[in-house]
Amino acid sequence: MASGPRSSSRARKVLGSAYAFSDRWIRLRRDTVLLADGQTEIARPIFEYPDWVDVIALTPEFNIVLVEQYRHAVGELRTEFPAGAVDGAEPPLMAIQRELREETGYVSEDWRRLGSASVYPAWQTNRIHSFLALGAHKAAEQDLDEGEVIRPGELPFADFIAAVESGGIELPALQLAGLSLLRAYLQRSDDPALAALRQSA
Amino acid sequence: MASGPRSSSRARKVLGSAYAFSDRWIRLRRDTVLLADGQTEIARPIFEYPDWVDVIALTPEFNIVLVEQYRHAVGELRTEFPAGAVDGAEPPLMAIQRELREETGYVSEDWRRLGSASVYPAWQTNRIHSFLALGAHKAAEQDLDEGEVIRPGELPFADFIAAVESGGIELPALQLAGLSLLRAYLQRSDDPALAALRQSA
Repeated sequence: MASGPRSSSRARKVLGSAYAFSDRWIRLRRDTVLLADGQTEIARPIFEYPDWVDVIALTPEFNIVLVEQYRHAVGELRTEFPAGAVDGAEPPLMAIQRELREETGYVSEDWRRLGSASVYPAWQTNRIHSFLALGAHKAAEQDLDEGEVIRPGELPFADFIAAVESGGIELPALQLAGLSLLRAYLQRSDDPALAALRQSA
Repeated sequence: MASGPRSSSRARKVLGSAYAFSDRWIRLRRDTVLLADGQTEIARPIFEYPDWVDVIALTPEFNIVLVEQYRHAVGELRTEFPAGAVDGAEPPLMAIQRELREETGYVSEDWRRLGSASVYPAWQTNRIHSFLALGAHKAAEQDLDEGEVIRPGELPFADFIAAVESGGIELPALQLAGLSLLRAYLQRSDDPALAALRQSA
């Protein structure tokens, strides 16, 4: 990027914060900030979420493990990667291992970190951590919260990619990020176990 | 996905809604819903955002146009695609043309729709619409809101991709989705104008 004066960063001193809403999953914060010119302003609301996690979980036959559930926010049944939120101080890897097991009953002994990124810095404080799980297999029944209805299923990975690209499956935009991180991971890895995957991703 | 009873979709009848928070950019809604078993419950909060838009804007030399700005939610200067929100009934293409012009002063006469997706159906009602703009060029000065400080800049597209993959630039996870949509678009397009791009994406 072009160089320029650092004052343009508009780093802000926070004079005070108030929460307009707060529950288990989200806190909506308004900060009163001191600007470089000495004025104060109430900044746009900030959404404090816990970090999120998701996983591209593949069976030994390179089937991807997906979950289907009704999403009230959009009023539709949606197909997604197993995903969830970090619980307190839980490390992201433990969080996604727990979510995969709870939502699908699948486990894996071979986890790779695909990467993490700030979800949407324009609004949100949190990061999403994406993982690849190889050799995933069903080891238990689902363990869902009361009222939660999630249907796990498998699809050959190449068919899944074709469905995403044709629009047959519309992943959440945020989970398309996981596919982008997977491609970068496959490019920099020379693991022979991933050769078949490299063809389809 | 495996077939199963449709009742598992848990489609819900909404008995009433209340807004816990509401401003220009976001409304936080709590619905009281009637479940299939006759019980009622207050559903998780839903975030009603306007639809979002972003653009991979390329100059005739295949430089990508990026914006750098301080993001208070994460307390950092961040590098991002030009992006924004649809204003009322404004079509997504007009919204992103406006945002590109306002944030960077660049315009383009060759716009392609890369696709759109629900941002995160677990929480949010809105969609993100991603575009590709070719032949982008600076035609005006920036036109920013009061207090907004945004530095536009150009990078060769191949260098940009290398920086994203090495971690030198951390795009918002949601904008990695745009890169994933771009790759799918390039694969299905035989436009010779895009051949050089296909090499680097």
